[in-house]
Amino acid sequence: MTKTIRQLAGRSPALATLLFAICACTAESPPATEAVDLIVAGAAVVTMDANDTIIEDGAVAVADGVIVAVGTRAEITATYHAETSLDGDGRVLMPGLVNGHSHAAMTLLRGVADDLDLMEWLNNYIFPAEVEFVDAEFVRIGTELACWEMVRGGTTMFVDMYYFGDIIADVVDRCGMRAMISATVIDQRSPDAEGAIDSIQKGSEFIERWKNRNSRITPIFGPHANYTLNAEQLQATREAANALGVPISIHLSESPFELQYSKDTYGTTSIELFESIGFFDGPTIAAHVVWPTTREIPILAERQVGVIHNPTSNMKIASGIAPVTAMLDAGVRMGLGTDGAASNNDLDLWEEMRLAAFLQKVEQMNPEVLPATTVLRMATIGGAEAIGMGDTIGSLEVGKRADLIQVSFDDVHHVPTFDVVSHLVYVTDEQDVTTVVVDGKVLMQDRRMLTLQTDRIAQEARDLAAKIQAALAARNR
Amino acid sequence: MTKTIRQLAGRSPALATLLFAICACTAESPPATEAVDLIVAGAAVVTMDANDTIIEDGAVAVADGVIVAVGTRAEITATYHAETSLDGDGRVLMPGLVNGHSHAAMTLLRGVADDLDLMEWLNNYIFPAEVEFVDAEFVRIGTELACWEMVRGGTTMFVDMYYFGDIIADVVDRCGMRAMISATVIDQRSPDAEGAIDSIQKGSEFIERWKNRNSRITPIFGPHANYTLNAEQLQATREAANALGVPISIHLSESPFELQYSKDTYGTTSIELFESIGFFDGPTIAAHVVWPTTREIPILAERQVGVIHNPTSNMKIASGIAPVTAMLDAGVRMGLGTDGAASNNDLDLWEEMRLAAFLQKVEQMNPEVLPATTVLRMATIGGAEAIGMGDTIGSLEVGKRADLIQVSFDDVHHVPTFDVVSHLVYVTDEQDVTTVVVDGKVLMQDRRMLTLQTDRIAQEARDLAAKIQAALAARNR
Repeated sequence: MTKTIRQLAGRSPALATLLFAICACTAESPPATEAVDLIVAGAAVVTMDANDTIIEDGAVAVADGVIVAVGTRAEITATYHAETSLDGDGRVLMPGLVNGHSHAAMTLLRGVADDLDLMEWLNNYIFPAEVEFVDAEFVRIGTELACWEMVRGGTTMFVDMYYFGDIIADVVDRCGMRAMISATVIDQRSPDAEGAIDSIQKGSEFIERWKNRNSRITPIFGPHANYTLNAEQLQATREAANALGVPISIHLSESPFELQYSKDTYGTTSIELFESIGFFDGPTIAAHVVWPTTREIPILAERQVGVIHNPTSNMKIASGIAPVTAMLDAGVRMGLGTDGAASNNDLDLWEEMRLAAFLQKVEQMNPEVLPATTVLRMATIGGAEAIGMGDTIGSLEVGKRADLIQVSFDDVHHVPTFDVVSHLVYVTDEQDVTTVVVDGKVLMQDRRMLTLQTDRIAQEARDLAAKIQAALAARNR
Repeated sequence: MTKTIRQLAGRSPALATLLFAICACTAESPPATEAVDLIVAGAAVVTMDANDTIIEDGAVAVADGVIVAVGTRAEITATYHAETSLDGDGRVLMPGLVNGHSHAAMTLLRGVADDLDLMEWLNNYIFPAEVEFVDAEFVRIGTELACWEMVRGGTTMFVDMYYFGDIIADVVDRCGMRAMISATVIDQRSPDAEGAIDSIQKGSEFIERWKNRNSRITPIFGPHANYTLNAEQLQATREAANALGVPISIHLSESPFELQYSKDTYGTTSIELFESIGFFDGPTIAAHVVWPTTREIPILAERQVGVIHNPTSNMKIASGIAPVTAMLDAGVRMGLGTDGAASNNDLDLWEEMRLAAFLQKVEQMNPEVLPATTVLRMATIGGAEAIGMGDTIGSLEVGKRADLIQVSFDDVHHVPTFDVVSHLVYVTDEQDVTTVVVDGKVLMQDRRMLTLQTDRIAQEARDLAAKIQAALAARNR
């Protein structure tokens, strides 16, 4: 068009000027772009797709909670417009982190006791505090506190195992995160059930209530471990889970204590026991898996058990060093978890990434093992696949739910930046995350929490902690 | 006085009113308290004195760069007044952290390459980048960047080993930190010397220039390691250090490579070699010490060698797991270090504390070893003692130089707080530090850096990194 006008200009300058003006006016009118709900940009977009694609100066478009386009910022803004656009200058845009194993409400007990023998820690601090204080209110406050910390740190999805699932689900519903919430099954009196049978029954009812109720919430079964349930109870839980069509989350092969218990009770190891009783005949998320034998690792791969590595907890309470690279090499689906804050003492998946890499390197005396890209996958798409949600979340790809975060690279510890993935794994921490979107909804923007009343939560948590501390002090005096 | 006036009031109300007015006026006039330069408060003051005293709602008074009083806030404010008072609500006041081993300028190379075999990493990335780019300007920018990160994260003192000591000293002088700066001695052409003899000569001149010039700066010798200097050169460095009355900092017993080299070359291990050649006949700061034998640990204790543990670096480049508790049990003076950011990839001593504790616990399969209090000592008074400055810094005690920090406990990861020391070790990170004072001077206040031009440093670091990245890409294409 411009060329045609220029040709005209030689013959009729006045007409050409008029036509130029019309063209300029047209160019200024709103472009015929498609309306979406949200456009989020990043100086680098770390997609975590199958090719580990990183797009410089990129963006994603989101409509109805779904990613509808991923590309350069120029491509996206040429094709879409949105009422809400989140600028990405100096920020990395990436999928939200997936916390594959947590006990969220236990965040209320962070630092209540440390550096103790496991049994002293459990029997004199954690169990007494739980027996006396864990009720619906404890779980509400503790889960709100955990969701606050997780969102603040860029976690968009977590797999939880605790009590009072309805309360947890209600908090998750309101705060906007995504979660799998386990109905804990344990053969003892617990805060919300009287034993294995009762907890399976109540768990089934919880799952019925929440199944298909909120697309962000997946109710599942959480049989505690092979040393707190007998083989029949484990089988019964699997049958109940399969009848309801939900996965199971369980502690598995975590500690030398569990190894010994399993050997003494069953004459075999946990994973071989589970295989023999059909426990893996359905989707399973196994937390810890520190002590699998070379015979057991192929079972985990073949049965597509999702293994969640919890390096901080495994180190802090001295459970051991999981053979992460051996499991990955065997094709086991692996994610990362924080475990509860009582044994961590935070919910920082960035630290789990670093520790996972560091621990494998020093244990194998080889700096090449478990490189940054691999642990970043474990914290995102790998974790999503491990929990059976690889088609839904974990990467920035068209068709996936819009769970994404912006990470500021302005802080001094990111200066200079040679490699974005290296920094995400070896430098970034919770406080660098600026923006969190789950299911297309903005939960945190420029470090402001939009769905959680943080002042109230902090006050309630501190008040409850003061009561717990007084009770434990009286008890252990 | 008030009682006397009240007694008067019955007889002469007018006189009593007058006297009340005089008293009120007197009460409003400045109290007869002592003037100091600075009062810094904390909701909890973690003194790190010999009794691990923690003062609730406490404060310190500082005059002429020295701590003149430590007590409750009420005691301090009743006795002292100061033009500058730093409020401590919601904050922990504690000694600044001591980074016992760093290569500050290498912060410019953080993340330039990771997850590589040590020799590939050194030969294809670190050494080529250093050969081409390390000059006075690189050292100035890199050290400024490191000082920025260290101050931001609460480190007030560091022991550095790099090149162009005058430049490093100049940066430290200007930014206000405290440092021991090594003149690196190495038997090869380096950025600032031609070999062992030349580096000893130039190092001596550097030490002469900076000795007694600035009380915050201690110039020392930094012979690199037993595999980059022969026994005679090591001895010559010790003699030069003793002649000048300065300590030595050296890499020692770091890696299986060093073990093998020492065995092949000397038929013994590094520490036994050093003992036999008199290398420990003077103050020595030994970095890493991953592989001391049971025979060598008592030598380190007896010779009062300060050992600096660098857990991140030791894990990330797979050097090994140092026997920290065995050394502590033997009476070895131990501190913590970050090593260079090229193998870390940050300068975060909070993370070193956590990793030190975690790594010992899992390695010994015992959660009780290296408790939080012990690692916090390593990062403060223990580190100060290890580098021979235990009388000067490392704790908040009357007579010590005023190197102190405030750490905010407002962040969600500190909620709730059962135990301040537990949180400092297992939760706190760089970004929680709000205030840093060195030698009585405020270097950072409410997260604002007061002595470093951070925008300029970030820009210069990014510009230089872009050149380095282009050169390495061309080289490794």
